Amino acid sequence: MKLSLIAQSIGVKFEGEDIEISGIHTLDEATSLQMTFLDNVKYIGSLETTKAAAVLCNAAAAENIPNGCIALIDEEPYLKLALASKLFAPNIIETEGPEAIIGKDTFIAPTAYVGKNCVIGKNVKLLPGVFIGDNSKIGDNTVLYANVCIYRDCEVGSDCIIHAGTTIGSDGFGFAHTKLGEHVKIYQNGNVVIKDDVEIGANCAIDRAVFGTTIIRKGCKIDNLVQLGHNVDIGEYSILVAQCGIAGSTTLGRNVVMGGQSATAGHLTIAPFAQFAARSGVTNDVKDGSKTYGGFPLMEQRAWLKLQAKLARLLKAKK
Amino acid sequence: MKLSLIAQSIGVKFEGEDIEISGIHTLDEATSLQMTFLDNVKYIGSLETTKAAAVLCNAAAAENIPNGCIALIDEEPYLKLALASKLFAPNIIETEGPEAIIGKDTFIAPTAYVGKNCVIGKNVKLLPGVFIGDNSKIGDNTVLYANVCIYRDCEVGSDCIIHAGTTIGSDGFGFAHTKLGEHVKIYQNGNVVIKDDVEIGANCAIDRAVFGTTIIRKGCKIDNLVQLGHNVDIGEYSILVAQCGIAGSTTLGRNVVMGGQSATAGHLTIAPFAQFAARSGVTNDVKDGSKTYGGFPLMEQRAWLKLQAKLARLLKAKK
Amino acid sequence: MKLSLIAQSIGVKFEGEDIEISGIHTLDEATSLQMTFLDNVKYIGSLETTKAAAVLCNAAAAENIPNGCIALIDEEPYLKLALASKLFAPNIIETEGPEAIIGKDTFIAPTAYVGKNCVIGKNVKLLPGVFIGDNSKIGDNTVLYANVCIYRDCEVGSDCIIHAGTTIGSDGFGFAHTKLGEHVKIYQNGNVVIKDDVEIGANCAIDRAVFGTTIIRKGCKIDNLVQLGHNVDIGEYSILVAQCGIAGSTTLGRNVVMGGQSATAGHLTIAPFAQFAARSGVTNDVKDGSKTYGGFPLMEQRAWLKLQAKLARLLKAKK
Repeated sequence: MKLSLIAQSIGVKFEGEDIEISGIHTLDEATSLQMTFLDNVKYIGSLETTKAAAVLCNAAAAENIPNGCIALIDEEPYLKLALASKLFAPNIIETEGPEAIIGKDTFIAPTAYVGKNCVIGKNVKLLPGVFIGDNSKIGDNTVLYANVCIYRDCEVGSDCIIHAGTTIGSDGFGFAHTKLGEHVKIYQNGNVVIKDDVEIGANCAIDRAVFGTTIIRKGCKIDNLVQLGHNVDIGEYSILVAQCGIAGSTTLGRNVVMGGQSATAGHLTIAPFAQFAARSGVTNDVKDGSKTYGGFPLMEQRAWLKLQAKLARLLKAKK
Repeated sequence: MKLSLIAQSIGVKFEGEDIEISGIHTLDEATSLQMTFLDNVKYIGSLETTKAAAVLCNAAAAENIPNGCIALIDEEPYLKLALASKLFAPNIIETEGPEAIIGKDTFIAPTAYVGKNCVIGKNVKLLPGVFIGDNSKIGDNTVLYANVCIYRDCEVGSDCIIHAGTTIGSDGFGFAHTKLGEHVKIYQNGNVVIKDDVEIGANCAIDRAVFGTTIIRKGCKIDNLVQLGHNVDIGEYSILVAQCGIAGSTTLGRNVVMGGQSATAGHLTIAPFAQFAARSGVTNDVKDGSKTYGGFPLMEQRAWLKLQAKLARLLKAKK
Repeated sequence: MKLSLIAQSIGVKFEGEDIEISGIHTLDEATSLQMTFLDNVKYIGSLETTKAAAVLCNAAAAENIPNGCIALIDEEPYLKLALASKLFAPNIIETEGPEAIIGKDTFIAPTAYVGKNCVIGKNVKLLPGVFIGDNSKIGDNTVLYANVCIYRDCEVGSDCIIHAGTTIGSDGFGFAHTKLGEHVKIYQNGNVVIKDDVEIGANCAIDRAVFGTTIIRKGCKIDNLVQLGHNVDIGEYSILVAQCGIAGSTTLGRNVVMGGQSATAGHLTIAPFAQFAARSGVTNDVKDGSKTYGGFPLMEQRAWLKLQAKLARLLKAKK
């Protein structure tokens, strides 16, 4: 899409040579064919080194953009980003396109749906009510139980099991806010990639990335009713117990264990092998993966147990 | 249904002129064509002013009913209410009735189901496996992703997005209890109304009202795996983050923000613009909407942070 | 399956007379036609009295097996159990077998799926998108709302209501772990039995047993988004409020009440009539069913309230 057209659509002034823009990504990840945005001054360092063709930012930040990058200046760049994201949103469902390629010995129930341009591996089982959106890929030997929904443009590896009712690739929860308190959708044009040998329980929700990819790495085991926000990266062989939630853009190292009903805030990095007891609430990066944590706010689990013992004594105290 | 027949069906003595009863509602909301009930003496004031045609109550309360209102006297009025509610329950699914009216440019997948007497707007997308119960309405431009289920008699506005696997209009959790500890279902004969420009995540559950309507107002944004009980009223532009739960009959003002895994008790009123951190537990009305709250029991978030700091010091103390 | 073949498949040395093995069960529950395993030395007493035909255990434990029981010796018996469990896993979906028997006046929507060898009672309603796996049974007058999924070999009683999107019989969350940190699935070859007059809300997940049966007893009422792990046993007339979770192998007595977002650890026994406030976290057996509990760690609810009052005073204290 021509940058001039984007600028016009979102109500931003555009000057300079017109170029073709293929999509939107973050300051760090945008290619020279994409546009990007700066919403928070703390990322100004990334602005200075971005490879993006154009950047949405306010007038002050525009001073810092690299040579060759076009500034689209607005005092509400995040709101303009939201408007621009809609321009790159694909169709909800394609009605034309190449039929799916289906591997040998694959079972597809009559009420299962496979979108255009999908690639379904060998010996796959798609039970009744399964939905596979357009352009998605399912690896060999994978089983999708009844009513599993894989949104468009997603990938599931080989030897995976996804239990009934789980949703993969729903939109991440991202909105810009107007001064009147309205919320403007940031279209979630990324996807989800699930690697090989992953098992996911029933009625989970795993959101697609806003840009780029939400990743569940090899050998992860995820229990029922688990929530994974957009752009999370779940390390190999991690274990997520029922009803836990990982907020957007958080990265778990390999072999992390999240207990039942535990949760993390967004944009965190959790060290490999870290273990979290049930109900843990993680609000900061965890750098030491050799320990078991618990509580909310988070502490070492043995400290939490000690604190609870002290509180029990406090309860018994006279005063 | 004739009141005499209702009385006979539920095993309550009926005397006086017979009348036609169109349904059941609360003391405050019942019209002169409906019956009501008094279960809890704290609502005696509402009994005195009810417009209902008849009221289920115990003998003591019957002294206070207004002129022209017929008393159906029983020592277990709530249990009798449960029995009566079943008499007004509609069919689970209609097999006869007018076909749905479908707007222009609307896409309905072959495995989607649209019930009798529905009205589906223009440019709507009903993806595979979507279920729309009888008499329901879907506004223009709304997208229902795969396997979304809208129960009968519900309404979804225009420009809404509902993600895969979400259920709208399931029965609220309401039971009367016998002396033997059994639970008798109170049929949930109300509905759900979702206003325009609402987005709801994947695998949420939003219950229909027992009487009247569960309302999600304009511009609300609801994340994945959220639970909304019967008769909640979610104010305009409110934001409900993943895995939070709002118990029955609670009202949120406009632009309330509920953090991830937060929850409220039932029958509360939350002031507009109030914000609740992740894991907040709200058990009382919140009257000051200018603050951010946290913790369980609830306090101001900054007080909660201060308390946690004190507890960390307590943990380090010798004793 | 011949024991010699099992041993060969899982890489364990086998000596002695070959026998036919019909399945796998626990030390206490295995019959003389089944094999079992000892993974944890605390169950050594059960090993001495097991009726199993064969037992997977390490060399030290093998000293204690009863006469006539064959030892399959390995230093990682739980890992070998996982491998053996796969040998007994049935087909995901049968394509041959007797057609289901359907009772009188039963409604089955065209997009509902009923597997081979099922028995569906009278006056049942299977709404669109419902999935009933092979060999399952549904009792008279039961209603399964849209997109409910009942996995193979499960039973739902009479007069039950299961709301949209709920999954019954998904695999329990059970894995053996290799020294390299990989997780090997323990195939969940048990089932779920739901007794009469049970109501289950929307988008719940109820796992099948690893061996034996997950049981929801008569008259239980379960709200939305509830998680029940494998092999739980929920006592008659128990009430489970929204978003609560019961971990694997926990037994609730009759008329237990679990508040919203509450949870229990696994392998616990909860006394009949015990009540748990919202957010309770139960980590030990509860022997006194006459009380209301709350907090995490768990205490009597009134103690929890008192403790919170003390903490509020601590917050106000100068120091």
